[in-house]
Amino acid sequence: MKRYQDPAWTDGMAVSLDYNYAMADFVGRVGLTSQELQALNPRLSSLHEDLSARREDGRLGFFKLPYQTEILEEVQKLAKPLFEWCWDLVVLGIGGSALGTQALYQALCHPQHNRLSPARRQHKCGLHILDNVDPDYCYGVLDGLDLRRVAVNVISKSGGTAETLAQFLFLYQLLKGRIGEDRLRQRLILTTDPEKGVLRRLAEREGFKTLPVPPEVGGRYSVLSAVGLLPAVVAGINADELLAGARYMDVRLKTAVPEENLAYRLAALFYLFATAKSRPMLVFMPYARSLASLGDWFCQLWAESLGKAHDLEGRLVHAGSTPVRALGTTDQHSQLQLYIEGPPDKLITFVEVANFQHRVEIPALWGDQDDLGYLGCRSFNELLQTEYTATAFNLMRAGRPNLTIKVPEINPFTLGQLFMLLETATVAAGFLFNVNPLDQPGVEGGKKTTYGLMGRPGFEAYQQEFASSPPLREEYLVK
Amino acid sequence: MKRYQDPAWTDGMAVSLDYNYAMADFVGRVGLTSQELQALNPRLSSLHEDLSARREDGRLGFFKLPYQTEILEEVQKLAKPLFEWCWDLVVLGIGGSALGTQALYQALCHPQHNRLSPARRQHKCGLHILDNVDPDYCYGVLDGLDLRRVAVNVISKSGGTAETLAQFLFLYQLLKGRIGEDRLRQRLILTTDPEKGVLRRLAEREGFKTLPVPPEVGGRYSVLSAVGLLPAVVAGINADELLAGARYMDVRLKTAVPEENLAYRLAALFYLFATAKSRPMLVFMPYARSLASLGDWFCQLWAESLGKAHDLEGRLVHAGSTPVRALGTTDQHSQLQLYIEGPPDKLITFVEVANFQHRVEIPALWGDQDDLGYLGCRSFNELLQTEYTATAFNLMRAGRPNLTIKVPEINPFTLGQLFMLLETATVAAGFLFNVNPLDQPGVEGGKKTTYGLMGRPGFEAYQQEFASSPPLREEYLVK
Repeated sequence: MKRYQDPAWTDGMAVSLDYNYAMADFVGRVGLTSQELQALNPRLSSLHEDLSARREDGRLGFFKLPYQTEILEEVQKLAKPLFEWCWDLVVLGIGGSALGTQALYQALCHPQHNRLSPARRQHKCGLHILDNVDPDYCYGVLDGLDLRRVAVNVISKSGGTAETLAQFLFLYQLLKGRIGEDRLRQRLILTTDPEKGVLRRLAEREGFKTLPVPPEVGGRYSVLSAVGLLPAVVAGINADELLAGARYMDVRLKTAVPEENLAYRLAALFYLFATAKSRPMLVFMPYARSLASLGDWFCQLWAESLGKAHDLEGRLVHAGSTPVRALGTTDQHSQLQLYIEGPPDKLITFVEVANFQHRVEIPALWGDQDDLGYLGCRSFNELLQTEYTATAFNLMRAGRPNLTIKVPEINPFTLGQLFMLLETATVAAGFLFNVNPLDQPGVEGGKKTTYGLMGRPGFEAYQQEFASSPPLREEYLVK
Repeated sequence: MKRYQDPAWTDGMAVSLDYNYAMADFVGRVGLTSQELQALNPRLSSLHEDLSARREDGRLGFFKLPYQTEILEEVQKLAKPLFEWCWDLVVLGIGGSALGTQALYQALCHPQHNRLSPARRQHKCGLHILDNVDPDYCYGVLDGLDLRRVAVNVISKSGGTAETLAQFLFLYQLLKGRIGEDRLRQRLILTTDPEKGVLRRLAEREGFKTLPVPPEVGGRYSVLSAVGLLPAVVAGINADELLAGARYMDVRLKTAVPEENLAYRLAALFYLFATAKSRPMLVFMPYARSLASLGDWFCQLWAESLGKAHDLEGRLVHAGSTPVRALGTTDQHSQLQLYIEGPPDKLITFVEVANFQHRVEIPALWGDQDDLGYLGCRSFNELLQTEYTATAFNLMRAGRPNLTIKVPEINPFTLGQLFMLLETATVAAGFLFNVNPLDQPGVEGGKKTTYGLMGRPGFEAYQQEFASSPPLREEYLVK
């Protein structure tokens, strides 16, 4: 029996929420009252009906991903031969094609995964995510690899992402020269729309291997599709348990009454602090180094889903709140001073992990020194936990609202829960903000200008628009 | 002759500022007018007098660091024997004892520095900065190293940082068991206050090697002291050129008239947008992967220096603005949607790099495809530059003010300039916000609660305070 099939184990692994320190009972009038939360209940009920309907009609494709175990089988079939010869998988992808994978990698792989010898890793390949077109970075990462032992996963839902395509062309040419085109074809997997886009067209013409991104799943909601699953499996992550965790959370969220629904409660808190409580910033601060990249993933999800000029009725609203990534305990020594004494414009969300894989004991040395002796015979684990407790407590006492997502331990099952919880909460927040959480119309302008300036046929007008804008003024330069 | 002794080279490497897109001429009334900037000139003149006086009397110790070449000699003397046998330097430090070093490491070392074989690195040790007490992270980093080949640099200005001391005790015991106490003493360097604190006391009693942190230099301003210099030299960074770059900028800032002073202009822009223009967020977005950690360093500097409850007259002001780290082009696919369409509450600061070390060409493959063909025969460099141009332009067109720090290339000389520029700008902003940019009183409460909960003698009252606070309410938990 797999451990996720044992209800005693899964219930012990359930993610939960503690929002005491966000309430007026603790932080005074900057906090929320039970009445304010209850006043939102009718909207949460409508939201629940709306989401239930959209689950059924398939418009919210990410809800289906944890159940698509046939995709995982396809991924595993493609991954299996790699373990025979591949030392490193290079992922070409950016934004939603990179951040979920990075979150999985950091949370679930050894902190020195890529540095361990292939022998020690065993059935786990190194993983390198090229999420930028910076030439020194791309050159440098590839420079450290044995290219005869590299497989490449090109990920772009639309197939049109300029950065990813540029990297693909470069790496294709490079590897063709090193290992020949026939072997290269065996080492290349394109993850893209099942029908549209240039990557799909090329794959059909040239016979490349492919994996699908479901058309109804946007990039930032795609981590549990082939986008995140292939790199995860190749890096040795238990993706079966990951999907089980996502299903566990999905069932919980589908069946809870709206007032006790974890995702809706989180969305309601985030929404009310951003709007009624005038706190435009949402700090996401895990007390676990390995969850820092989950923070990056969530920051995309939240920012791109809710930062919208227009609401669903087309009114100009400039909605959204700004996610800010932090990390405990590190940022106690960097950002905490601002959070505790600066402008009262933030809601802080901690992620607390109850149990780590390792317990690191602090030996009792130089015990005669007061400022050292108290640490002896304690552990890193106790210190980290205590610092979280002390930070949340002192923020509360300073009238700075905060809440905590509680995670029993970091493993594929809890990661799956966190992905599903935060995706559902974000879509729910879209309902509350009354914006479309699935599009990103604001970034089109920049893409078109880029195409224009790069000379792509059909985009001459954008080049022209740029060229005819007023010239820069010398007086606004400081040399 | 060293290249930094050649004025033609150094002037070609000068960092500059372009704030056209922050001005009303380009972004309309959300931008600044020349009049608004000029109105600040009398305060900039007072600021200049104030800073000049404080340079002289030594209260702003960081101004002296680039000239303390004798410290660099001491560092080089300590580092030299390491190159004989050491493969990896482990730095124990957090906040100001880690972020500057991380910025140097990421900006100036190979992207796979720690992964390259010691043979290929030659006279450059691996560098591992343990800036967190997370047990899995600390265990995992050390697990990947050959402990017989490790040197340790413990960094804490006060000597009292709980995380760093806990790591020190653990690593001391661990290495003692592996290599014996005598050899361990040769491999341990404590960087701390020259007179005070438990690390200094231990060093004197046990005879450990030490390096000083000048008492008048706070952690977040200490990157150019022994704090940053030792790890930099051990990792193979040219610290001589780094200090030369810092001196170059310092001379420029000392001698420029206030209205044309790069640091004061930057401070004035940051200050006016945060206050008069009601934009509480300051996005720092380099278009270079290797400058991401410089962003983290700047975020500490800005947040901890200016996020203050009280002004210099003791009035309750809750001053400051919130730095937000982003990265081009990566965050075009994550945060840009929010920046361009969300609430108009941000000023965006780009860092643009003119020349990279490598030029990565994009081959012309499948040129018959419109959505691919335009990339052929261009380069990653052009694409990155074009994406920056298009992003800044489209933000401006959407009425979103932005400015750009322009860097000719990334090298120790320009990094030195950037550190000095941003430190001076932050201290200048402290003057404008009328707060003390050198202290961090807000984080003391959390430290005391931690000490209390960990049972440190003398802090029982804080344990008591925590224990007697109202209990958490079940109704504010979602399980």
